[in-house]
Amino acid sequence: MSNTKDKKPLILVSNDDGITANGIRKLVDLMKQIGEVVVVAPDSPQSGMGHAITIGNTLRLFRERIFPEVEAYKCSGTPADCVKLGKHHVLKDRTIDLVVSGINHGANTSISVLYSGTMSAAIEGAIEGTPAIGFSLCDYDPEADFDHADEWILKITEQTLKRGLPKYTALNVNIPPKRIEKVKGVKVCRQANAKWEEVFDQRRDPTGKPYFWLGGNFVNFDKGEDNDEWAIANNYISVVPCQFDLTAHHAINYMNEEWEL
Amino acid sequence: MSNTKDKKPLILVSNDDGITANGIRKLVDLMKQIGEVVVVAPDSPQSGMGHAITIGNTLRLFRERIFPEVEAYKCSGTPADCVKLGKHHVLKDRTIDLVVSGINHGANTSISVLYSGTMSAAIEGAIEGTPAIGFSLCDYDPEADFDHADEWILKITEQTLKRGLPKYTALNVNIPPKRIEKVKGVKVCRQANAKWEEVFDQRRDPTGKPYFWLGGNFVNFDKGEDNDEWAIANNYISVVPCQFDLTAHHAINYMNEEWEL
Repeated sequence: MSNTKDKKPLILVSNDDGITANGIRKLVDLMKQIGEVVVVAPDSPQSGMGHAITIGNTLRLFRERIFPEVEAYKCSGTPADCVKLGKHHVLKDRTIDLVVSGINHGANTSISVLYSGTMSAAIEGAIEGTPAIGFSLCDYDPEADFDHADEWILKITEQTLKRGLPKYTALNVNIPPKRIEKVKGVKVCRQANAKWEEVFDQRRDPTGKPYFWLGGNFVNFDKGEDNDEWAIANNYISVVPCQFDLTAHHAINYMNEEWEL
Repeated sequence: MSNTKDKKPLILVSNDDGITANGIRKLVDLMKQIGEVVVVAPDSPQSGMGHAITIGNTLRLFRERIFPEVEAYKCSGTPADCVKLGKHHVLKDRTIDLVVSGINHGANTSISVLYSGTMSAAIEGAIEGTPAIGFSLCDYDPEADFDHADEWILKITEQTLKRGLPKYTALNVNIPPKRIEKVKGVKVCRQANAKWEEVFDQRRDPTGKPYFWLGGNFVNFDKGEDNDEWAIANNYISVVPCQFDLTAHHAINYMNEEWEL
């Protein structure tokens, strides 16, 4: 899967914060140093969309000229829709060498990978057999500083193009927030065992009817040092290779032994 | 995790086709034979929502009296939102013994598990440490006949309550469409290696602007006989135990060996 040709690799860029977010602008700037960039990204924020796709409704796709010298499109759909449209419509006669998504404004470590629109774009690339990376900065500030991540994002991208990834995998890359201490390096690791403990904030609208805000506290059950939460807490960049076979293979034997059907 | 008490198990029911779908009415009727049922389901169809949750927007939740003698609520959010609201608001002082979702009008085999709202409700249950099952009928007709599945849905549910599931797993159960030949039985299996090959149907709106319908052809790469596509094609009910650790564990060694970072 490595790119050995002389021509520049073709890189499809998407995200979930929307095409005007600072994070995607930074990612486009970095990818332009490596390859030919085409952007298909949501026309509005799509955080928390998980692996949603647009069924039973139509999609819009329009040219957008906000990135200098880069072919870009804004799409009314989800991040997964964007990659599908990029692959099967915008670039349908060409081979995409890499799908990258982000840089997300906020962490997508541990369980958050399931809810992440950023990672759904990357996993959609992996489903197509294309190497793919989702980048997230563990800082929710829309004005967060991404510069400390530049060299690492370039390195991880170049290694992905040079060394390839096992088929049907996408990388979930999380970058610690900018601190006084420099980032220590990269840890290839597993998804931490953690979850969100939901708290619903119930309020009343002006007519007296109830409504809710979803909120929650993050609870980390994982005592290991080989997971993404540990890496970020210790100022490493976490790289979790992800796949989309949800089968709990260990449970098949259990059920075939214990169940009576 | 088995229910050994005398009291009836508490079963939270959700779906992605919306609270008025035939599939959830059938599931509620079946679950009432086994336990105490509480329903929290979307107020409108949520097919293809994957593991989306509602961030940056509010949620509504209202009592709905369409199921005789059953406490039920319709929610403006996604299937994952419904289970979160069911667990942390509606039933927050009680222990849920089982989360069931469906019966979906349409298959959620192989790769479709990623896009499935039905399964996101079940997986949300698994994240909470509660045994969970998503049921889908491989028939997209809203008026499809579910009766041939009754005995199997009851059996699988009873076994789940009696034998339990390994922690953090949810069952993805797909039921063949009604045929002249009776269902042959149940196969515990893995998710097939298959994907959707997208085809976008481009049209023009009355003002001349383009829009798209997402469509696609299902492509099955899997030659095995231990997967859900094989089971359905051979008139078995497929049961795939699913988990939510997306780590491609096999890729970690590869990257630690081959990559230079």
